[in-house]
Amino acid sequence: MSGTAVVLLSGGLDSYTAAAIARRDGHALYALTVRYGQVHEREVEAAREVARDLGVLRHVELGVNLAAFGGSALVGDGDIPKDRPLDERGIPSTYVPARNTIFLSLALGWAEVSGAEAIVIGVNALDFSGYPDCRPEYLEAFERLASLATRAGVEGRPPRIFAPLVHLSKSEIIRQGTALGLNYALTHSCYDPAASGRPCGRCDSCRLRARGFREAGLEDPALGGTRQ
Amino acid sequence: MSGTAVVLLSGGLDSYTAAAIARRDGHALYALTVRYGQVHEREVEAAREVARDLGVLRHVELGVNLAAFGGSALVGDGDIPKDRPLDERGIPSTYVPARNTIFLSLALGWAEVSGAEAIVIGVNALDFSGYPDCRPEYLEAFERLASLATRAGVEGRPPRIFAPLVHLSKSEIIRQGTALGLNYALTHSCYDPAASGRPCGRCDSCRLRARGFREAGLEDPALGGTRQ
Repeated sequence: MSGTAVVLLSGGLDSYTAAAIARRDGHALYALTVRYGQVHEREVEAAREVARDLGVLRHVELGVNLAAFGGSALVGDGDIPKDRPLDERGIPSTYVPARNTIFLSLALGWAEVSGAEAIVIGVNALDFSGYPDCRPEYLEAFERLASLATRAGVEGRPPRIFAPLVHLSKSEIIRQGTALGLNYALTHSCYDPAASGRPCGRCDSCRLRARGFREAGLEDPALGGTRQ
Repeated sequence: MSGTAVVLLSGGLDSYTAAAIARRDGHALYALTVRYGQVHEREVEAAREVARDLGVLRHVELGVNLAAFGGSALVGDGDIPKDRPLDERGIPSTYVPARNTIFLSLALGWAEVSGAEAIVIGVNALDFSGYPDCRPEYLEAFERLASLATRAGVEGRPPRIFAPLVHLSKSEIIRQGTALGLNYALTHSCYDPAASGRPCGRCDSCRLRARGFREAGLEDPALGGTRQ
């Protein structure tokens, strides 16, 4: 593998790890962070630090105000659920309608302009227990769409969708990233941080992260050495 | 057919006609206009007038700055081609990479939040001689993606993609819209209008429109009674 890839970088640990795997495999990276109307901007700040750490060729922050449609706790429509059973099935209220389709489409536009041969996304097995747009069959359908949608596809070299974490658990992701020397202190996962930026520790994202570090037998460096 | 539909409304005559067909078929309409970094804002003004004329439930204008990626004359990257042979094959420089995928994705987000049962897009046979993301097989691939991407799809009622103009020529579109009583004076098609808003008459879009009215045996009311 070589050439460039467009990576969707959220500021969380999954997309950072996916990007680092693409880099290890020989890709130079363009990083795309979408400001989609999140209530909290802390994750966008984290994305900037992660992009710098990865040494990307260029980092674009693109605004698209999905709050105009509403429909998700992540864009201010309802409260962030706390202390929810982690393995509950079903689509949570933090689901942002069509988010990955919108993000992948934007990445596809950049991939086409830049001639990138891959789009990197950090979705994983945990996500697709709840979010329909994280499942492998969804990613395959997007790859097929990309092959029909673009000039590159018409010319026989459509960008592929690279989702290296898709079958990994959170602890496996953390182990892989740690082996690659990643600094997870740069990342931010919480859906509902305090004004100081400190994670709440009670939303799904905080608790999945804490369980991942615990199962990997590692401390979370973003918590400054304390253990939840 | 009944229920609501999200229509992608550009301010041109195709999307206006597609929306009017969906309305005739019993849909109440949500209209989405994407400000994607067009050099000219005249078409966004036209979209507002068209939305008002159609009596839509709500019109959302959403900004997403595709000029950040470059790669199209329509977002200021290179000159708009003029006086080009109209039936030339190949992808013109006015092609905006992944534009329809991005637009349909945004419409999908709104459709999911609002429970709309269809997404309406005005692509047609003329478009897909040059733009890969206007072909029927592309639209089918997006519909499949939508069925996998969304909560509605998981629950067995994915939004369908309604492209009522897909096999029509420009003159057939104009005849249909005229029969529906549409006021094409509200629409704007030119890629490169004068500061006054007056169409240039020489870009592909102006010339396809002029040929469509000529073949339909009608005057273009947007030209104030003059004939090109």
